[in-house]
Amino acid sequence: MPSSSSSSSSSSSLPTTPNSLKVGCVGGGQLGRMMALEAPRLNISMRFLDPTGSDCPAAQVVGCSGPTSTPGGVSDRIVKGTLCDEDKLRELGMGCDVVTMEIEHVGVEGLRKLEEEGVNVQPCSRVIGIIQDKFVQKEHFAKHGIPLPPYTNLPTIESIHDAALQFGLPLMLKSRKGAYDGRGNTVLKETTPQAIASALDDLGLKESDLGDTLYAEGWIKFQCEVAVMVVRSTTGETRAYPATSAIQTDSICRVVLVPARNVSAAIRHQCEQIAMRAINALGDGATGVFGVELFLAEGRHGGGTEVLLNEVAPRPHNTGHYTQDACGTSQFENHLRAVCGLPLGDTGLICGAAAMVNVLGASSGDINDTMQGVNAAMSMPRAVVHWYGKGCRPGRKMGHINITADSHAEIDASLAEILDLERISVDALPEDCRPGKSPLVAVIMGSQSDLPTMQDAVNILKEFGVPYEVDIVSAHRTPEKLMQYSRSAASRGIQVIIAGAGGAAHLPGMVAAMTPLPVVGVPIKTSTLNGQDSLLSIVQMPRGVPVATVAIGNATNAGLLAVRCLCASRPDLRDKMEEYQLNMKEAVDATSEKLLAEGSDKYLEGMGNKNKSVNV
Amino acid sequence: MPSSSSSSSSSSSLPTTPNSLKVGCVGGGQLGRMMALEAPRLNISMRFLDPTGSDCPAAQVVGCSGPTSTPGGVSDRIVKGTLCDEDKLRELGMGCDVVTMEIEHVGVEGLRKLEEEGVNVQPCSRVIGIIQDKFVQKEHFAKHGIPLPPYTNLPTIESIHDAALQFGLPLMLKSRKGAYDGRGNTVLKETTPQAIASALDDLGLKESDLGDTLYAEGWIKFQCEVAVMVVRSTTGETRAYPATSAIQTDSICRVVLVPARNVSAAIRHQCEQIAMRAINALGDGATGVFGVELFLAEGRHGGGTEVLLNEVAPRPHNTGHYTQDACGTSQFENHLRAVCGLPLGDTGLICGAAAMVNVLGASSGDINDTMQGVNAAMSMPRAVVHWYGKGCRPGRKMGHINITADSHAEIDASLAEILDLERISVDALPEDCRPGKSPLVAVIMGSQSDLPTMQDAVNILKEFGVPYEVDIVSAHRTPEKLMQYSRSAASRGIQVIIAGAGGAAHLPGMVAAMTPLPVVGVPIKTSTLNGQDSLLSIVQMPRGVPVATVAIGNATNAGLLAVRCLCASRPDLRDKMEEYQLNMKEAVDATSEKLLAEGSDKYLEGMGNKNKSVNV
Repeated sequence: MPSSSSSSSSSSSLPTTPNSLKVGCVGGGQLGRMMALEAPRLNISMRFLDPTGSDCPAAQVVGCSGPTSTPGGVSDRIVKGTLCDEDKLRELGMGCDVVTMEIEHVGVEGLRKLEEEGVNVQPCSRVIGIIQDKFVQKEHFAKHGIPLPPYTNLPTIESIHDAALQFGLPLMLKSRKGAYDGRGNTVLKETTPQAIASALDDLGLKESDLGDTLYAEGWIKFQCEVAVMVVRSTTGETRAYPATSAIQTDSICRVVLVPARNVSAAIRHQCEQIAMRAINALGDGATGVFGVELFLAEGRHGGGTEVLLNEVAPRPHNTGHYTQDACGTSQFENHLRAVCGLPLGDTGLICGAAAMVNVLGASSGDINDTMQGVNAAMSMPRAVVHWYGKGCRPGRKMGHINITADSHAEIDASLAEILDLERISVDALPEDCRPGKSPLVAVIMGSQSDLPTMQDAVNILKEFGVPYEVDIVSAHRTPEKLMQYSRSAASRGIQVIIAGAGGAAHLPGMVAAMTPLPVVGVPIKTSTLNGQDSLLSIVQMPRGVPVATVAIGNATNAGLLAVRCLCASRPDLRDKMEEYQLNMKEAVDATSEKLLAEGSDKYLEGMGNKNKSVNV
Repeated sequence: MPSSSSSSSSSSSLPTTPNSLKVGCVGGGQLGRMMALEAPRLNISMRFLDPTGSDCPAAQVVGCSGPTSTPGGVSDRIVKGTLCDEDKLRELGMGCDVVTMEIEHVGVEGLRKLEEEGVNVQPCSRVIGIIQDKFVQKEHFAKHGIPLPPYTNLPTIESIHDAALQFGLPLMLKSRKGAYDGRGNTVLKETTPQAIASALDDLGLKESDLGDTLYAEGWIKFQCEVAVMVVRSTTGETRAYPATSAIQTDSICRVVLVPARNVSAAIRHQCEQIAMRAINALGDGATGVFGVELFLAEGRHGGGTEVLLNEVAPRPHNTGHYTQDACGTSQFENHLRAVCGLPLGDTGLICGAAAMVNVLGASSGDINDTMQGVNAAMSMPRAVVHWYGKGCRPGRKMGHINITADSHAEIDASLAEILDLERISVDALPEDCRPGKSPLVAVIMGSQSDLPTMQDAVNILKEFGVPYEVDIVSAHRTPEKLMQYSRSAASRGIQVIIAGAGGAAHLPGMVAAMTPLPVVGVPIKTSTLNGQDSLLSIVQMPRGVPVATVAIGNATNAGLLAVRCLCASRPDLRDKMEEYQLNMKEAVDATSEKLLAEGSDKYLEGMGNKNKSVNV
């Protein structure tokens, strides 16, 4: 499927000699490690700078031979040193075609010097400098018209009072630099000297530290957090990955759901557009993958949903891990492609839905407790385990699990089990994102009197194991519900709608007018015209809005038709449908055998009162 | 989706300390390299034995740190030596939890000694011994009732004459050991002494070498080659990956298409069952992934298609490379899971269809010529490049490209381009496997007189960019074609059938009775009853066989309904459908504006002769 794209494609080629493209990466944590696992396929070899040297996660996976290694191996592929050490940065860059990073807390000055010395640093030091200081980042995006929550710099204690007056309480206080996973953020609930001192203490600051260390953000009534990964090439081509629901617990990313669950396609596209605009606003040298965190907030001006940018990370991001198993090109491969000047890869989903769950070191610190989720995932279809090879500590990011499926509904059973094993309460998830809330087929009807007929469709869905929901939606008595239900069905993950109605049967056609999904119409039998009124009301739709109409009163066939529609993406369902058809054949064969054996007279006798057509 | 499985699941866990599971692999070529790229995610570290030492493809990707490495790195992760060198095999196995292999041409005796010394070798030496000698392999499978082409041992020149008499000419002569990529096979067309001497010469044999070096196979009239990857756990659980079409040129695997193209689901399942039976027949120690090559042959006893086993490789296989991007668990990960005693992973497809194209060193030997295909693939959606990091030689396997999509039809454009750049003539592909032969939607009708109506459906499919085919299939005049067409539609990759018919309109319902696909019925307007006969003939189907019926003569809606059905697996089409609906709204808005501006009198005047309902 096509990915959002804002410009024409670059046209470089893969290196033509083995491992001739050499990429140096500042930081050798799990993000670097996952880059290194994609690099060999693309004929790229990597080296890393990390404070822990050959103990870092990336060291376990970079090749021990190849053009950048000396016979000794390790010392050449892994440079041990802090990420601000100019000499070590220089050592990393020696002989590399590109220097990139897997973390933004690096020495911008050191990178700038490297650039002066002719090293190709992507993203460039100027961009890292903007992003590293979150107040500068906000100023930059504000200047470029990117929608932001209200914010202000806090150079003094007085400015905290001013901000509280301007934005109201509670007020978010945030460190301008060095914050991650919730560290560096605190909430100010009142402006007493004690409360302010306590808040500064939370952030490890004293009053004398103020100046360029702290800024404030107004409190946002946000509906949910959305994250969008964006990749930008050296030539300025920008592509967005699909918008995701990013769910945190204790300020750490725990669960990502894709596409963003219960967020309409229009809002998702808006998120992707704003994310691409923000990254483009960073200008030349904004190269590689960027994680863009957004808030969906209640419109401040009385409108519906407002999309606001929270912050940006200039590298692959935890909320983009799902791309490894759910997208045409993972964020790690696309980062490498972008910084190396290769063509950008496809950012579209290759499945209908995906989820990612982070595996954190258990609070017991026990590795066996920590691994319960990944061990269970090893036996789940379409769950993929990504382990980082790090020592276990409580709360440490140890690995993640990606789950893919054709729809949110099909992810739910595995997701619920993993959430449980990862000790993540479902209450941590927004209510409409919780497992079990994602039917694939909706069975609706104009009146409860239609239920005895429509139950046949439900029974078929049960038989085929297709998740469904049943509701009453009356075109004439609940027109607002009709509209709301129809418009939201697709973004709720529903793939087929079965609608039954009788008489002047408007429900199926009206639903079809307000959804892109296939709508199956069941004409309910009526007492006055035997359902001919229902049939013609449902089937004779105008050009442009189809309803898949079945026989009068035949909701069984509506259920079967819904299953056949799902077959397009579900070979397993197609196999089941073939089995169902074979069973019908065998049932008729058995009847035929009995009739042949008994003769028609005796058979008819045996039928007794049952002697009526079995059809419909 | 569920995978074929023959036994209960194993229940081991991932290792609990970083990289605590150590796997030694005999051979460090591209198969070992691709295993090594999957290992870190599973907390497994690998080492390799290879004759080229640290120049082998695997050496570029095994970590340069971790528990199995000494500070020097390389020497510990890569053992340099031949694959039969007992001391080197022992060095490889030292401290490893499991020793496995990526090639079957290894020292069985050396492996046997390792086993005696307590090393855990998976698959075991006994199994390798059976597979290594292709005549012994045949004998083993024959004993276990696996269907095989006729074969016989050739201990003497006389036995060649006997075999020719028994099986007829031409006769396949095959080396019992050491054959790969077509080397070790030759065709004997006549039994003159010169022809026999020449055939032996082809195989590098002299008459005096006969004894246990050569065997014969009867010539099979085969329709196509199918390959099935099978994974078997230490506890005997066996799972099959989907059957693929394996296409060779010059006896080297060039293209793999999944699911096997134009092979019915029943035959594909039969292939998967035979492949699993064959691997299970190897007994205890048949652990890991096995590549199973099969022939689909014309039934020797006058029947339809016969499935015959060709040969088995005890390792990941070229025909299974597509699993990296198209299946829940790749063959490389599943091989590691199996030999380590971890639970087997999902072998089902995560997409509707996939293709793999091998990249061979160009005949010019020029790396730039060689890389044309992969460079083009870098810009194709859902194409994934896997480069092996080897030096370029004409005909050498340098890498491969996987393409995935929701259907064969969506692969075709990319596949055709890559085939062209890889200098693979489409004539090398069986006719019904060639790109462009895979419509997604079939538009059929009972008579050519229905075409003016049905063309509206075709126009919608064109507008949405959905590949289609159009044909005349008459229920009453071509009943055999009706049956053949309906029964084969799904295995040809068709996902929705639109059928139009008039009067006693049986076509849509009869097609629906013989396919699991959704069938959209278009009642054609008739002169006698205005299409009411057609409508009731199509819509009033009995319970069990649904037809999605649209309004009389409204083929536009049939096309739209087909697109809506495809939406289940195609978010891009859903977006287009929403746009289509928006366009309809805007068209009506424009009309409404004009009507408001002009007033009804003037507007009606302007309509002139066009004043009739715009509906249907």
